Amino acid sequence: MTTIKDSVHDHIEVEGAAEALLDTPEMQRLRRIKQLGTVQLVYPSANHTRFEHSLGVYHLASRALSHLGIEGDAAAHIEAAALLHDVGHGPYSHNIESVTHRHTGKYHDDVEELVARGTIGETLEAEGLDPKRVAALVEGDGEFGQLVSGELDVDRMDYLVRDAHHTGVPYGTIDHERLIRELTFVDGELVLAEGNVQTAESLLLARALMNPTVYQHPVARISKAMLRRAAEQLLTEPDIDAHELRRMDDYDLLVALRLNPSTTEFAERLATRDLYKRAVWAELPNVPDSIIDAEHDAVADFEREIAAAADVDAESVILDIPPRPSMTESSSRVMVNGEMRQLERESPLVQALRTAQEQQWRFGVYAPEAQTERVGRAAANVLGLDIKGTLVSEVRSGLNATLDEFE
Amino acid sequence: MTTIKDSVHDHIEVEGAAEALLDTPEMQRLRRIKQLGTVQLVYPSANHTRFEHSLGVYHLASRALSHLGIEGDAAAHIEAAALLHDVGHGPYSHNIESVTHRHTGKYHDDVEELVARGTIGETLEAEGLDPKRVAALVEGDGEFGQLVSGELDVDRMDYLVRDAHHTGVPYGTIDHERLIRELTFVDGELVLAEGNVQTAESLLLARALMNPTVYQHPVARISKAMLRRAAEQLLTEPDIDAHELRRMDDYDLLVALRLNPSTTEFAERLATRDLYKRAVWAELPNVPDSIIDAEHDAVADFEREIAAAADVDAESVILDIPPRPSMTESSSRVMVNGEMRQLERESPLVQALRTAQEQQWRFGVYAPEAQTERVGRAAANVLGLDIKGTLVSEVRSGLNATLDEFE
Amino acid sequence: MTTIKDSVHDHIEVEGAAEALLDTPEMQRLRRIKQLGTVQLVYPSANHTRFEHSLGVYHLASRALSHLGIEGDAAAHIEAAALLHDVGHGPYSHNIESVTHRHTGKYHDDVEELVARGTIGETLEAEGLDPKRVAALVEGDGEFGQLVSGELDVDRMDYLVRDAHHTGVPYGTIDHERLIRELTFVDGELVLAEGNVQTAESLLLARALMNPTVYQHPVARISKAMLRRAAEQLLTEPDIDAHELRRMDDYDLLVALRLNPSTTEFAERLATRDLYKRAVWAELPNVPDSIIDAEHDAVADFEREIAAAADVDAESVILDIPPRPSMTESSSRVMVNGEMRQLERESPLVQALRTAQEQQWRFGVYAPEAQTERVGRAAANVLGLDIKGTLVSEVRSGLNATLDEFE
Amino acid sequence: MTTIKDSVHDHIEVEGAAEALLDTPEMQRLRRIKQLGTVQLVYPSANHTRFEHSLGVYHLASRALSHLGIEGDAAAHIEAAALLHDVGHGPYSHNIESVTHRHTGKYHDDVEELVARGTIGETLEAEGLDPKRVAALVEGDGEFGQLVSGELDVDRMDYLVRDAHHTGVPYGTIDHERLIRELTFVDGELVLAEGNVQTAESLLLARALMNPTVYQHPVARISKAMLRRAAEQLLTEPDIDAHELRRMDDYDLLVALRLNPSTTEFAERLATRDLYKRAVWAELPNVPDSIIDAEHDAVADFEREIAAAADVDAESVILDIPPRPSMTESSSRVMVNGEMRQLERESPLVQALRTAQEQQWRFGVYAPEAQTERVGRAAANVLGLDIKGTLVSEVRSGLNATLDEFE
Repeated sequence: MTTIKDSVHDHIEVEGAAEALLDTPEMQRLRRIKQLGTVQLVYPSANHTRFEHSLGVYHLASRALSHLGIEGDAAAHIEAAALLHDVGHGPYSHNIESVTHRHTGKYHDDVEELVARGTIGETLEAEGLDPKRVAALVEGDGEFGQLVSGELDVDRMDYLVRDAHHTGVPYGTIDHERLIRELTFVDGELVLAEGNVQTAESLLLARALMNPTVYQHPVARISKAMLRRAAEQLLTEPDIDAHELRRMDDYDLLVALRLNPSTTEFAERLATRDLYKRAVWAELPNVPDSIIDAEHDAVADFEREIAAAADVDAESVILDIPPRPSMTESSSRVMVNGEMRQLERESPLVQALRTAQEQQWRFGVYAPEAQTERVGRAAANVLGLDIKGTLVSEVRSGLNATLDEFE
Repeated sequence: MTTIKDSVHDHIEVEGAAEALLDTPEMQRLRRIKQLGTVQLVYPSANHTRFEHSLGVYHLASRALSHLGIEGDAAAHIEAAALLHDVGHGPYSHNIESVTHRHTGKYHDDVEELVARGTIGETLEAEGLDPKRVAALVEGDGEFGQLVSGELDVDRMDYLVRDAHHTGVPYGTIDHERLIRELTFVDGELVLAEGNVQTAESLLLARALMNPTVYQHPVARISKAMLRRAAEQLLTEPDIDAHELRRMDDYDLLVALRLNPSTTEFAERLATRDLYKRAVWAELPNVPDSIIDAEHDAVADFEREIAAAADVDAESVILDIPPRPSMTESSSRVMVNGEMRQLERESPLVQALRTAQEQQWRFGVYAPEAQTERVGRAAANVLGLDIKGTLVSEVRSGLNATLDEFE
Repeated sequence: MTTIKDSVHDHIEVEGAAEALLDTPEMQRLRRIKQLGTVQLVYPSANHTRFEHSLGVYHLASRALSHLGIEGDAAAHIEAAALLHDVGHGPYSHNIESVTHRHTGKYHDDVEELVARGTIGETLEAEGLDPKRVAALVEGDGEFGQLVSGELDVDRMDYLVRDAHHTGVPYGTIDHERLIRELTFVDGELVLAEGNVQTAESLLLARALMNPTVYQHPVARISKAMLRRAAEQLLTEPDIDAHELRRMDDYDLLVALRLNPSTTEFAERLATRDLYKRAVWAELPNVPDSIIDAEHDAVADFEREIAAAADVDAESVILDIPPRPSMTESSSRVMVNGEMRQLERESPLVQALRTAQEQQWRFGVYAPEAQTERVGRAAANVLGLDIKGTLVSEVRSGLNATLDEFE
Repeated sequence: MTTIKDSVHDHIEVEGAAEALLDTPEMQRLRRIKQLGTVQLVYPSANHTRFEHSLGVYHLASRALSHLGIEGDAAAHIEAAALLHDVGHGPYSHNIESVTHRHTGKYHDDVEELVARGTIGETLEAEGLDPKRVAALVEGDGEFGQLVSGELDVDRMDYLVRDAHHTGVPYGTIDHERLIRELTFVDGELVLAEGNVQTAESLLLARALMNPTVYQHPVARISKAMLRRAAEQLLTEPDIDAHELRRMDDYDLLVALRLNPSTTEFAERLATRDLYKRAVWAELPNVPDSIIDAEHDAVADFEREIAAAADVDAESVILDIPPRPSMTESSSRVMVNGEMRQLERESPLVQALRTAQEQQWRFGVYAPEAQTERVGRAAANVLGLDIKGTLVSEVRSGLNATLDEFE
């Protein structure tokens, strides 16, 4: 048994297969992948990594298993999946996941290949664990997959408290121990036991508050969009392919961006926090569906067209279109008066989250500071946006506080 | 200047009039009044007092004044009001406030008389402060009164974090420093500056989660109802009047209940945590308006009638009817795009709180454990309740988790 | 199983005999005994009680037992002893223990009688536990007694972190989880495993820093001395005896002091924090052995003599003579290179603690503020002290910061 | 004014020159230099950077200045120095400082050149600040230099609490706010005001406990020694010089080590935590002076000689010789009875720290795991060490717990 000191959960005991898996190069690589990517440019203390998060998820999974009375082979597979659940992350975590997905067809939780091969594959085999079963759990399959990836999974319990601890934003401070203790399986579904409507609400509300404040903070979104654009550029170079890029760590990627002439400027801007600013910042009702649902190539076309219209370099215009709001977590299940119910049915707060998410949705067009005015007007033109209410230059007085905060 | 170490805000500097006020017997008495009364029977660590809370409110008021640039005479009055805002509390804080109010016509924030007289009056005078003005601020009057008692007051910022710290329930962990920094006055109204919809939401959501979990926890409600009943009984004794009762501290009251033969049993039950249990636990739609809106005397009649019907002692039946849900806080104001707006208009989450509050509302009938079945049926009869869905004995299997937790 | 939320250890699970013991009136009484007595007059947040501390000690004991692999009957007795270890405390914890001991011959850990009788006795019997064995463990007897009361006991692990949490003084923030994990039995002795010299040091250093800052803070000592004197006075009344006093809670005692004419003034002074001040404050080398070793009656004679010499009331002079420094904890044992060694032999820091304790030792004479000068000079005369260096009025300029802080 | 959220000090307000300095590339680079270098391989959460630490030091300096009443030009220079104090750090902070120092003659606090030139130079000039004066403050010169670099500087107040927060090791949890409040200048010396012997002790004891547990943890030392050796190797390459190396960030260095064939193996080992182990671990009295005082070249000779004797590759033997213990901090000054005194004179605990430091001193010889036995014996031979008591292979049973913990 190895005991590891963690800043969030204090002592974490790692045993069995997990202990061996921890030492694989694939897991150790997660030490060099920041949990929150460019959020660190907004919250300077947010330098925690996927490695410590993975340990935390493993720890919470172990505790949940012990409370649920799950042991033996099933437990060993779940613990392995908990530890390995983020091993498929590319550099800067989710930041460039859409780019690598477009080129490789794989998201970070598609780890079947990764856990079947290399040191992880060998280790699982040596420990008598089935890589396919572990990969399925990582994707949330089956009854026990819900513990690793589902509405009530231990993944989000860990990241909320961990991100709160490291950013200093207290909204994520949930009662994870209570959540763990109240988990139970009813008819093959993972639910919270009787008397836990508030417990379930607290988890969703924590995320709803962390989202705009941390995960989708405008500066984090801008820097992420810049990183994404730079990564796309990098992939046009002959000697780097997306599969390779996906296996880099943060260190590799930043240095690659620095060394590659076509991405040096982005690398430099990110490194010195000389970021683009918002030219357009538009709410959901003000953005045509054709833009919201545009595919990558169409978006790139828009960007080029706007750049031409504004008479700026092509890389000076970045569109940032978040996916349409969706709220899968609101289907968490809780027991109420002996029946299993969907949280959304029980909780007006959770119902309201759907609307809140729609209200918080923002479409952004970013450009170097000196060009935001010009790019903003060109973008409004090209995209057919109403200037009033979408152009940052128009509403700057009102938006001031949000715009400048932590910028 | 006095520096005081506080478990929540670390070092608190008390200066000027506040320093002198701190030493008055009226303020020192707050050391012996628990902030959360009987909540301590649910959360054993919740022994914090109105004294430390008052220091915390003073501290946050000082910080807010410094951020708002308010100085001199106005600031001195506000700081005094912040420190003194709870000096009118009776023993066990809010627990028996309805009883003393019925007999004295005064709530805890009606302090005009209290601060005009005695050591506080002398101190205020010596410090050149106007007691009337201080009392008005405590009641939330005027522009600056909003800081002391209003939708965005420093009172609730302190109590949420303090109650979280001492109960161990993290839901109250708001970002009070951010709230303080974003306060601003616009057209005489205290609002949160641009970019703070989430900040404002977080305050209301924190309370919405603390409410059922801490402040209205069933066991806290039961013990509070028992204490209330005991206090009423005590006031029927010839030698104790309500004005005197209101100026007692927790120590005086508990010992008075012990020594008085007609209240000994309640005192004993509370001291040994041998509490009544729920016989009826009914949701808002299941309770007739005539009960919800019943005056004290009518309630007492119901209790007697039920006791008779159940053939138990009169003191074995306690009705607990919370006020109808109301959500004044949701009118907090925030700046959005340069306009002052009501939070409720901006935030679907805050809109949902109204519904949530209605859903959480519960009417209770309590009785000694052995008599809950009998009292429940009698109460349903007398009050015309639907047995199914209100009688705890009927739904016990489903309610189990809630009922037993921390009981 | 009952789960209780604690502000220090989060969720505490209470099972088996402990669950039944928790509900006894004797345990519930600890809810009304402050852990640190009058320290609350220095650190206003320090209102935590022996009840929550007892739960914490039980919790740490359970964890230690699980790490040590101790189960069954032995574990049940140890857990019961951990929970009950403070049940013998009188009101205000240690504050008046010397008084009750003089009259009853019993310290707080002499619980043999207490656990053999009443509800605790019945509960232990019903649970198949032997009261004698539990009482012996509370006194630290036998191999397992070391866990409950010894150099490395879980009692001090809990109180250090708990007192730090509630006072706001961080010095007590030890790594209790690490300590628990490293406990092991070697040849019947409880020791810390290899590699834990620093772990052991940290425990002793935490106490060495908490001692003068919290436990022996001058204001806490003064108010404790006043309380002691008041309790002695109370015992001269015909209707109160020491055995009864010892079973009071804080509420009973404070109200008794209020109601009894001869102690009203002390009660009033303590309630309004109108405390005596130091007239003499002398270091170990400046105090004759005859004073340090004086018995109670001799001390009372000194007090009367000084009062007469100073021409003040007898109750205006209080001598406060701490026991001679002794450092039993420094004999904690740690494993070093496979051998069991005394910490003191291994650690120069721990060796130095003995000297530090001697340097921190202070003899005090206290009096009402207006009389400190007069009482100080009279005390110096009567006790044969060197005025220079012991009389607070002489060194006040130098002592200023210490004297005024938190006063 | 910029407000930045910090996980340790909550909101940090950056104003004036500091705000402009924060945006310089030189400061932004500190975002990519871990505060504790390879300690992250022992404590996975320890990923905090010199950037957030610099902000923290600036924050504490501002608070100290405000308490000390220092304003205007002096304050602006001190705040700039506080923010810039670590700008001279090379990659991995102190880890390879001895290497770059040998080649450049500069330690990290030699920033005169750095702050006079480039963006920092321009910014200081634009803000009317004198780079020479700032550089002198960073080196601790003059009365005010003591605040930035001295026995009671704000640097160590920040790093102790920050390192505790991020490692999870609580020993560094000092009362920094109290320290700041008690700072005062007496005769041009920075001292702690009367009544603060324990406050001063707590600072030194915190460091004394953090040292072996965190800063000098064996695994951190081994990985640091490996990194040092790799950096030396890198400098033998034609295209990298030490001045350039010193200005790299962690990202540059790790990738450079990866790409350079002669250092790939070290890079790989560090990245996968496949570390050398201890072959020799010797206490101060067991190591000849000739080794302790050996210059770099002599050490390199020893390493080669041992490798030859053990018949292993030259890079398989690393000697790790810490400097002789020295305890400059113990000269912190505190006021006692109106006189300024050296802490060491007042505090037996601080006196003991010198001895403790000598006892904790260890000389190490490291080698790949499979070769520790062979290298250990060869080293003992070559260096003339007593095998018993220095050879890890001999004492492994006893050392077990220490050796394996967190390895």
